[in-house]
Amino acid sequence: MTGRLIGVGTGPGDPDLLTLKAVRAIAEADVVAWFAKRGNPSNARAIAAAHFRPGQIEEALDYPVTTEIHRHNEDYKARIGGFYADAARLVADHLDAGRDVAVLSEGDPLFYGSYMHLHVRLAPHYPHEVIPGITAMSGCWSAAGLPLVQGDDVLTILPGTLEQAELARRLGDAQGAVIMKLGRNLPKVRAALAEAGRLDGAVYVERGTTDRSVILPLAEKTGDEAPYFSLVLVPGWSDRP
Amino acid sequence: MTGRLIGVGTGPGDPDLLTLKAVRAIAEADVVAWFAKRGNPSNARAIAAAHFRPGQIEEALDYPVTTEIHRHNEDYKARIGGFYADAARLVADHLDAGRDVAVLSEGDPLFYGSYMHLHVRLAPHYPHEVIPGITAMSGCWSAAGLPLVQGDDVLTILPGTLEQAELARRLGDAQGAVIMKLGRNLPKVRAALAEAGRLDGAVYVERGTTDRSVILPLAEKTGDEAPYFSLVLVPGWSDRP
Ligand SMILES: C[S@@+](CC[C@H](N)C(=O)[O-])C[C@H]1O[C@@H](n2cnc3c(N)ncnc32)[C@H](O)[C@@H]1O
Ligand SMILES: C[S@@+](CC[C@H](N)C(=O)[O-])C[C@H]1O[C@@H](n2cnc3c(N)ncnc32)[C@H](O)[C@@H]1O
Repeated sequence: MTGRLIGVGTGPGDPDLLTLKAVRAIAEADVVAWFAKRGNPSNARAIAAAHFRPGQIEEALDYPVTTEIHRHNEDYKARIGGFYADAARLVADHLDAGRDVAVLSEGDPLFYGSYMHLHVRLAPHYPHEVIPGITAMSGCWSAAGLPLVQGDDVLTILPGTLEQAELARRLGDAQGAVIMKLGRNLPKVRAALAEAGRLDGAVYVERGTTDRSVILPLAEKTGDEAPYFSLVLVPGWSDRP
Repeated sequence: MTGRLIGVGTGPGDPDLLTLKAVRAIAEADVVAWFAKRGNPSNARAIAAAHFRPGQIEEALDYPVTTEIHRHNEDYKARIGGFYADAARLVADHLDAGRDVAVLSEGDPLFYGSYMHLHVRLAPHYPHEVIPGITAMSGCWSAAGLPLVQGDDVLTILPGTLEQAELARRLGDAQGAVIMKLGRNLPKVRAALAEAGRLDGAVYVERGTTDRSVILPLAEKTGDEAPYFSLVLVPGWSDRP
């Protein structure tokens, strides 16, 4: 009997935003694994740790490369591909030994999550389950108390890594929008929002749902620096009462 | 001292997908309220009911009109506007009496949720909090084990109520897509997906995360009928390994 692969969404940061199902999966797993930048504490681990059981095996899957190498570079692609293959093999060894492995994933596992790289490699071969998590965007618009979309509104989710012209084009064609992966893309994102006439109303959220969160109108955010855990919300529902 | 307004996301259907925070808010509230179609049992109530406390006040906010009247019709707009005003007044009376009111909302409250109509009317006047919920789409793609978007992918959320040409145009311009509010819009949505060349790969999910769920490739779904609780997932991440 092989073990089960379980992708577990840990939500955006507040440990109380774990689901009952996630709490049970974390507590019952034989192995708990997560992706992290080498040397950095894992956010997903911190959210889930209160539910760990003594004796559980912990596996930190540490990224070998960082953003210093551009992600379209061939060397980066080869190294990151090898890393995911190695991580999948490590998890597969536990599954082959009959151990259930819970892979913690910030927010929702199948929505821009690292867990997806294990899922596509292992789900065809092992019993598996994915436990959805509160996405970063849901956590952030709830913390901001910002109604996002209603009725016939279209909502567009944009990675801040896109080109400015492409961001502006898409922002001009949506009622609601969320821009993820801010970080060093903040100045470009700000310019794209201005170009699309959507800077007014845009809300900046940093480390949403944690006790270090920052929520403010993007127009009031000074500086060109944003941490990894930040995004921009552009509310729709313009004809609300 | 006035009471607190709490928008509580109940998630897509599986009661285990309530968050720890939602469970606590439901159990502690003085009043639990929800929107429903008159005569229909409330889905949100069913998801949350195990955590109700004896003696809690329950308030069903029953819609006076149904989809028989078109939503752009002026008579509909007047009646639904009056209904939301009355519902807000009913909740406000509890808040004024110092009672905390938890308003249950399927999925996530601020994402196409009825709770939003109370939020915009009451949040400016009362202490309030919004507890995010697992969205229907997260529940559905997790249940389907379907990786949705990764890397530079754009994700577009579309209400099935849009015109076919508009749906097709937007489907042709996104990597991942989710089409909500299927119901009687299913034939139009299917045609729009075909027009955009995205029918292949599209997945139909009905009552996702419940024990009556149906998950199948949209191409294999027969008939033109879909229930209210159904959506279509169009996965991105085309260059996955
Ligand atoms: C690789 S994506 C992962 C998304 C995640 N799987 C989800 O469901 O939201 C990482 C991005 O999510 C956003 N993010 C994650 N947690 C956040 C938080 N607590 N506050 C603001 N943004 C957050 C940031 O934009 C970050 O660059
Ligand atoms: C008014 S919207 C509410 C969305 C909700 N607030 C959310 O966060 O997902 C209702 C639509 O959500 C979708 N939906 C809700 N629950 C669902 C489920 N369990 N399975 C499939 N679709 C669902 C359907 O498309 C339905 O028409």
